[in-house]
Amino acid sequence: MKKTTYTSPQDAEAAFYEALETGNLDAMMEVWAEDEELVCVHPGGPRLLGFDQVRASWAQMLGSGQRLQVRISDPVYMQGMMLSVHSLHEIIAVPGQARAQPVAAINVYLRTGTGWRMVAHHAAPVPQVPQQPAVETVAASPKILH
Amino acid sequence: MKKTTYTSPQDAEAAFYEALETGNLDAMMEVWAEDEELVCVHPGGPRLLGFDQVRASWAQMLGSGQRLQVRISDPVYMQGMMLSVHSLHEIIAVPGQARAQPVAAINVYLRTGTGWRMVAHHAAPVPQVPQQPAVETVAASPKILH
Repeated sequence: MKKTTYTSPQDAEAAFYEALETGNLDAMMEVWAEDEELVCVHPGGPRLLGFDQVRASWAQMLGSGQRLQVRISDPVYMQGMMLSVHSLHEIIAVPGQARAQPVAAINVYLRTGTGWRMVAHHAAPVPQVPQQPAVETVAASPKILH
Repeated sequence: MKKTTYTSPQDAEAAFYEALETGNLDAMMEVWAEDEELVCVHPGGPRLLGFDQVRASWAQMLGSGQRLQVRISDPVYMQGMMLSVHSLHEIIAVPGQARAQPVAAINVYLRTGTGWRMVAHHAAPVPQVPQQPAVETVAASPKILH
């Protein structure tokens, strides 16, 4: 039973990264859809399918007690009526460790009866993130496909 | 100027993998949208943005003359009116080499004025592909969100 209604994919995405940073499993799984086919690929990991596999992976990741700092940059939004696709960079830092790991992620959100919810998260480590992203204007003015 | 009209995301996807196997750059770029913001992550590579970067990367990959055999499995389809998201495994083999590299990919297609075209391809190497995928029934009966 979902308690929160995310009125936009951006709301769901903000909740996703807040849950990741705070290590809150319940908040994380609140963001994901419940009844749909879910897909999740953590950096370097296998493709996970369905709510139970996805939940188990986050329980393991968030249950370690290690806190992460996640900075999001260079978003590109593809917005439809039912689906919203976000491509972005995640710069993931572990407090006390020098080097942050850049990750390229695609997040997919579905408009459900209880607002927008995540149905796919697909993350891959990348060699580097461009210093001067060419998409700043895109991020400021997302493309809407309605 | 696009010559081909793909009437479904599946048509565009079939053309994408045929171009990859045959090493045909023109056929590959025919699949991609022209005027939209494009995103492409090759396995282990950085995120590429826009038609020119995406074309240059395929020119390099397909121009080597090395032919690839690509087997697709375990597709999960998320289908909207304007956007279609496909998650799948690619089993990529180089003829003459023993070991095939499994890759988890997300392909995103957009309904344009000239049919469905690719706007994102996001691929990541995965440790293994499940022998008995749990999604066979999903693949046989794709979810339609119209």
